[in-house]
Amino acid sequence: MLAPHQHRFLILADGQFGPLTSKTANSCIRYFPERIVAVFDRVTAGQTVRDVLGFGGSIPVVGDFARGLALGASAVLIGIAPMGGQLPPEWRGWLKAALERGLEIWSGLHTFIADDPELGSLARAQGVRILDVRKPPPELPIADGRAAEVDPYVILTVGSDCNVGKMTAQLELRDELVRRGVRARFVATGQTGIFIEGWGIAVDAVVADFVAGAAEQLVLQGAVDADVVLVEGQGSLIHPGYSGVTLGLLHGSCPDALILCHQATRDYIGDYHGREPWVRIPPLAELVEIYERAAAPVRPTKVIGICLNTFDMTEAGARAAVAQAAADTGLPATDPVRFGAGALAEAIVREAVATR
Amino acid sequence: MLAPHQHRFLILADGQFGPLTSKTANSCIRYFPERIVAVFDRVTAGQTVRDVLGFGGSIPVVGDFARGLALGASAVLIGIAPMGGQLPPEWRGWLKAALERGLEIWSGLHTFIADDPELGSLARAQGVRILDVRKPPPELPIADGRAAEVDPYVILTVGSDCNVGKMTAQLELRDELVRRGVRARFVATGQTGIFIEGWGIAVDAVVADFVAGAAEQLVLQGAVDADVVLVEGQGSLIHPGYSGVTLGLLHGSCPDALILCHQATRDYIGDYHGREPWVRIPPLAELVEIYERAAAPVRPTKVIGICLNTFDMTEAGARAAVAQAAADTGLPATDPVRFGAGALAEAIVREAVATR
Repeated sequence: MLAPHQHRFLILADGQFGPLTSKTANSCIRYFPERIVAVFDRVTAGQTVRDVLGFGGSIPVVGDFARGLALGASAVLIGIAPMGGQLPPEWRGWLKAALERGLEIWSGLHTFIADDPELGSLARAQGVRILDVRKPPPELPIADGRAAEVDPYVILTVGSDCNVGKMTAQLELRDELVRRGVRARFVATGQTGIFIEGWGIAVDAVVADFVAGAAEQLVLQGAVDADVVLVEGQGSLIHPGYSGVTLGLLHGSCPDALILCHQATRDYIGDYHGREPWVRIPPLAELVEIYERAAAPVRPTKVIGICLNTFDMTEAGARAAVAQAAADTGLPATDPVRFGAGALAEAIVREAVATR
Repeated sequence: MLAPHQHRFLILADGQFGPLTSKTANSCIRYFPERIVAVFDRVTAGQTVRDVLGFGGSIPVVGDFARGLALGASAVLIGIAPMGGQLPPEWRGWLKAALERGLEIWSGLHTFIADDPELGSLARAQGVRILDVRKPPPELPIADGRAAEVDPYVILTVGSDCNVGKMTAQLELRDELVRRGVRARFVATGQTGIFIEGWGIAVDAVVADFVAGAAEQLVLQGAVDADVVLVEGQGSLIHPGYSGVTLGLLHGSCPDALILCHQATRDYIGDYHGREPWVRIPPLAELVEIYERAAAPVRPTKVIGICLNTFDMTEAGARAAVAQAAADTGLPATDPVRFGAGALAEAIVREAVATR
């Protein structure tokens, strides 16, 4: 357990702080704003976090890293994910300055900062921790179906694309289910979820043969003393770069049900660093079919609800999009951040009881 | 390039030498028997390789590792893949003995032998190489569709399960196409293919986010001066442990066509270290649909032929199975090892010309 509640963070999001470009930063701001002293970004410096994201209150955005360090943080949290995950050279100076002041580094990059000779030895010399939360645990198993045998009702979020709200949907559902007295457990499968929850495995950083095994191990851990296990989804079955991670997670976690997540205004798979949009996102009903068919040969499951991300729409537009998604799929739909997760939580309780 | 043709190998296959249990050993024996001095296996010791496998001639199986070392090998090749890929403790003594005699170690295990403190430093002291061919290259890209833009006709083998002949099908097709004057290039995506061909990437050992990127990079490399690129497939979309690797390879390699491989007598996915059979293999026509549907949202492709593995059937049974597979799918079918790859090679040339 990482104990994020014991820290105060300076978030590094230089050059990329924005609603769609700083996913890790934004989710940390949404789920533990009281622990964030500032965001470092030279582009939006001078504004507040709410000015940039539409939420997050008066947390300042600073354009000078040293000034950010002076605001009382105990750790620097890396809040953006450069394509490929490599450590940009400019960051080295900032991270050295942080370590020299005794601040921990919390990173979810594919490049492990503790393995960097200069930064790693500086951390050891200073006696401070570098937490590379994407580093997988040793000795993961090959999946063999044990996740199907746990008692709780297991739900996995799946999506039309990366960065559409698969983690947020589960966190909102968890909170809503807990309010209703259900022992709901969130299972983090990515770096941001681990930052928020304090444990988990970033399955996209696991050696490919062991992705399903990692998912299985997480479900077994999450199932202890739980009624409902909410597994954070990753990627998309139609994402050319990350689809393998998605399928490994789907087959390894053996979910009883899926919740399909989508950003209502998105028509094409994103994330193509400068290349033309290429993969068109099919209609929601077709996505439901794609996921159910992919799961079926291993263990049948079904989509039981839709979570739309409508952050960039008007209130009326968002309501219409949610109604349309429900009509198109015949499933309960909501934007859990904007309209709450009540309807979906009800559907989950109903399904979980019906199948147990 | 590893230059396997410059070596003579002692193959380590202790306790697992057999038609279905020593996949790497068997393929090396099939494709470079003249370079193999002996197989080490205490169970089948005293027999010849042909006694055990049905092919491979008079290569001896020895039950004493030291005796095997004395037969003139220049390298030990690890020919079996323990579940999970860990280095069994008993092997340590054998590998030390080999290194002490100056033999190289060729390994495709997930556990990198060169990283073992004792064996690694012994190899350095002796000035001999340990080749961990499953170790991925640094700096792999995230796939972004460039494999779709190469000039050659790209074919990927896909399968009903692991260990059904996806690599062998491509090697047989390569040889048949080359005989017909086609510049056909085999692209290895697993440790055995790398042993045989001397280059490639074991995509199942790549960090999950980069599987599709590794496949893309391999296709770009294989495409140079080639008319047809034959990509070795991995796993199966319906294998609970490895399906993610399969989907990453499918989306990353952007194949123009697929060849579906199946072992005719297999009804269930194997590889469950002691657990009950669980995932039933659907009919071939359904598998064709599963693969074509999984590819379609990213880049449509189609199955153009069937390769059956009939090693455990009578000649008449094998002919009937091949005819049935062709009838069930409406596609050309063969067992390329038993009946040759001629019909499939013709289909490939026809398709490649028609689409270029």
